[in-house]
Amino acid sequence: MSELTGNCLVAQSGGPTAVINASVAGVVSEALNHECIEEIYGGLNGVHGILNEELIDLAEESQQNIRGLRHTPASALGTCRFKLRRDEDFARILEVFEKHNIRFFFYVGGNDSQDTANKISKLAQSRGHEMRAIGIPKTIDNDLVVTDHCPGYGSVIKSICTTVREMALDHEAMGQHDLVSILEVMGRNAGWIAAGASLAKGNKENPDLAPHLIYLPEVPFTTEKYLEDVRRVLSRNKHCFVVVGEGLVDPDGNYVSTSSGATDAFGHAQLGGCGDFLQRTVEENLGIKARSAKLGISQRAAAHCSSQADNDEAYMAGEAAVRAAISGETDKMVTLIRGDEDQYSCETGLAPLEDIANGVKMLPQEWINEDGVSMNYQFFKYASPLIKGEVEVPYEHGLPQYTRLSKNRVQKQLGDHKFE
Amino acid sequence: MSELTGNCLVAQSGGPTAVINASVAGVVSEALNHECIEEIYGGLNGVHGILNEELIDLAEESQQNIRGLRHTPASALGTCRFKLRRDEDFARILEVFEKHNIRFFFYVGGNDSQDTANKISKLAQSRGHEMRAIGIPKTIDNDLVVTDHCPGYGSVIKSICTTVREMALDHEAMGQHDLVSILEVMGRNAGWIAAGASLAKGNKENPDLAPHLIYLPEVPFTTEKYLEDVRRVLSRNKHCFVVVGEGLVDPDGNYVSTSSGATDAFGHAQLGGCGDFLQRTVEENLGIKARSAKLGISQRAAAHCSSQADNDEAYMAGEAAVRAAISGETDKMVTLIRGDEDQYSCETGLAPLEDIANGVKMLPQEWINEDGVSMNYQFFKYASPLIKGEVEVPYEHGLPQYTRLSKNRVQKQLGDHKFE
Repeated sequence: MSELTGNCLVAQSGGPTAVINASVAGVVSEALNHECIEEIYGGLNGVHGILNEELIDLAEESQQNIRGLRHTPASALGTCRFKLRRDEDFARILEVFEKHNIRFFFYVGGNDSQDTANKISKLAQSRGHEMRAIGIPKTIDNDLVVTDHCPGYGSVIKSICTTVREMALDHEAMGQHDLVSILEVMGRNAGWIAAGASLAKGNKENPDLAPHLIYLPEVPFTTEKYLEDVRRVLSRNKHCFVVVGEGLVDPDGNYVSTSSGATDAFGHAQLGGCGDFLQRTVEENLGIKARSAKLGISQRAAAHCSSQADNDEAYMAGEAAVRAAISGETDKMVTLIRGDEDQYSCETGLAPLEDIANGVKMLPQEWINEDGVSMNYQFFKYASPLIKGEVEVPYEHGLPQYTRLSKNRVQKQLGDHKFE
Repeated sequence: MSELTGNCLVAQSGGPTAVINASVAGVVSEALNHECIEEIYGGLNGVHGILNEELIDLAEESQQNIRGLRHTPASALGTCRFKLRRDEDFARILEVFEKHNIRFFFYVGGNDSQDTANKISKLAQSRGHEMRAIGIPKTIDNDLVVTDHCPGYGSVIKSICTTVREMALDHEAMGQHDLVSILEVMGRNAGWIAAGASLAKGNKENPDLAPHLIYLPEVPFTTEKYLEDVRRVLSRNKHCFVVVGEGLVDPDGNYVSTSSGATDAFGHAQLGGCGDFLQRTVEENLGIKARSAKLGISQRAAAHCSSQADNDEAYMAGEAAVRAAISGETDKMVTLIRGDEDQYSCETGLAPLEDIANGVKMLPQEWINEDGVSMNYQFFKYASPLIKGEVEVPYEHGLPQYTRLSKNRVQKQLGDHKFE
């Protein structure tokens, strides 16, 4: 047992997922078990809110609310894409931690967030504020290194596969003319999400089942090859179902049909529009009717068809983070470790935050078939277990009932923070 | 009991829905109860397939398959957007009916399809081929006249409301900056689908809940009013959720951001792109970040979150069609009639096909609030019961299992048909 006693703070960062709140529920439930944790605080809108001293008392939330978090999509604490850069921002975070006696800090996020958690912890150590910082992985992109996979990934691909299956049936029914259907999905640098759509086939490498073609950021895109691929599929089927990752690039590394050069706070390009580009390319070059759909953020928020396996692991990662901190670990992120057996199993581990921060795990090239537009058995073996099981969401008046926290504020003890 | 004895034929037409197969299941189940119906045939791809004599034996399908149709989206028999125009096409249809002794014809579709069924029946009467033609309503657009509502509508709006609720939570979580989120939904001429998104609020006229703004084809669109609406919402909330029907028009009646002048086989304009237009308009005029999503055909195919009420009524309409034909009715469409009581109830009726054909039921202007971008209690009262209940879809390996028919072909007895 740790001798460290004080308050804990959990916050969320980056793009939400269908299960990031399950991790917060795991943190809160486990924290209640340990007497060395006095107050259980939530930070609103990640480090941006912590800078403003916007803390809520999570122990005051009803049990119903904390249970409801397990099936509620998006970030119930609010999130941010704000990057801590200035020394005065880091110092302010530490000041908030000191004033509120934060000794256990849990940050649920992707690699930028793990980097932030690491820097805060290092600063605390250098200033003599004893604390433990544990990261909890979260990203639909599945691109964190070290961990076998990331909470959030299984649910986003389950939602996409469900949609692919349903759209494909609709598509097949319109059997009168050739038809190309294009679904644009998320995935900034790595094709994990687009690749995951291949599970809609039902674990089989059946070329007649949708999706027929998957375009990944890992495979440089050329219009010639694309038109050839579509022609090949249409020579067998009257319909061709295309899934494309938003981060598709040409052989020079330029995004295909990036609508503008806009970037977000982390300098990442804002993507979108490659689905429309693929639609126009088919219509203009092959004279064949094409349709495109862009699920946008609905794909990552689709808790109503999220994966129970993913949800359970997200919750487990939250619990594991608390246990790790209590046992004296710090500057680590919880990882998911897959068992060696044929039957899928998953347990948690720990890895240094600095190993996670700013690393990116690409989809292994050897999991992509030679045609460049489909996935092989290694990918199926990897991804299939992650979409298993259906989360039961309560319904009322025909719609899913999601939880909004009461958000009882912790009294501020500092003046306003000056943002740059 | 009818003295007419012979085979029955059921076919599907127009855009699929999440519950159109439930109507076919209703036809097949009810047809099995009546000895005057000898064979139960399905026509593939609507009248287009019937012209080609592409018939399948539905009684040969396994019971599992027919049961599976009740939760399988899209048109299991295939569909078409082919319009019968030429005399030789009508004559050919009749020839197929005569050769295969089709005495009971059930056509599941929208107003174009009911028009087609009516014309076929009238021709049969003039040629002395005794038969009964009964239409079964189907359209997500909910724009058929006479019937209180259409099977398919409840499910598409339930799916959209689920997505609105989930996207809105995601949206709210990104609380750092103002954000406008735009969801483009289907709806060619009438705003029933876009209006249905208002149910995501949970039956309450709460201006703080998404969707905040709904743009309907019934309300002429101007950029000035739109920007004013967005500014008003953002003065209360950091997020503004916009739902827009694809058939949005400006005060001159031109589609907003129609990408091309292309039309389908019925002369209807091919729409899309108004969501992107609304996104760009906000970004360029207000300098506020905006996102858009276009659910495309996924919204009408989303059987995994379809409405049990809608599904039950689609099935009931199929059964009612058979019973009507058996009892001697013809040239009628099954309608849905809402009970007078406060507690929602629904039974079937019949209306002449010619009353349905080519009529369009617009969203009543008096159900739209004065602001032009929200719906009042009359709409909520009308639409709320239609999304009630969740259809249980079987899952395997984490994904919904849908049914594909075996499609055992009925032997052709005629030569090939020459299309124009």
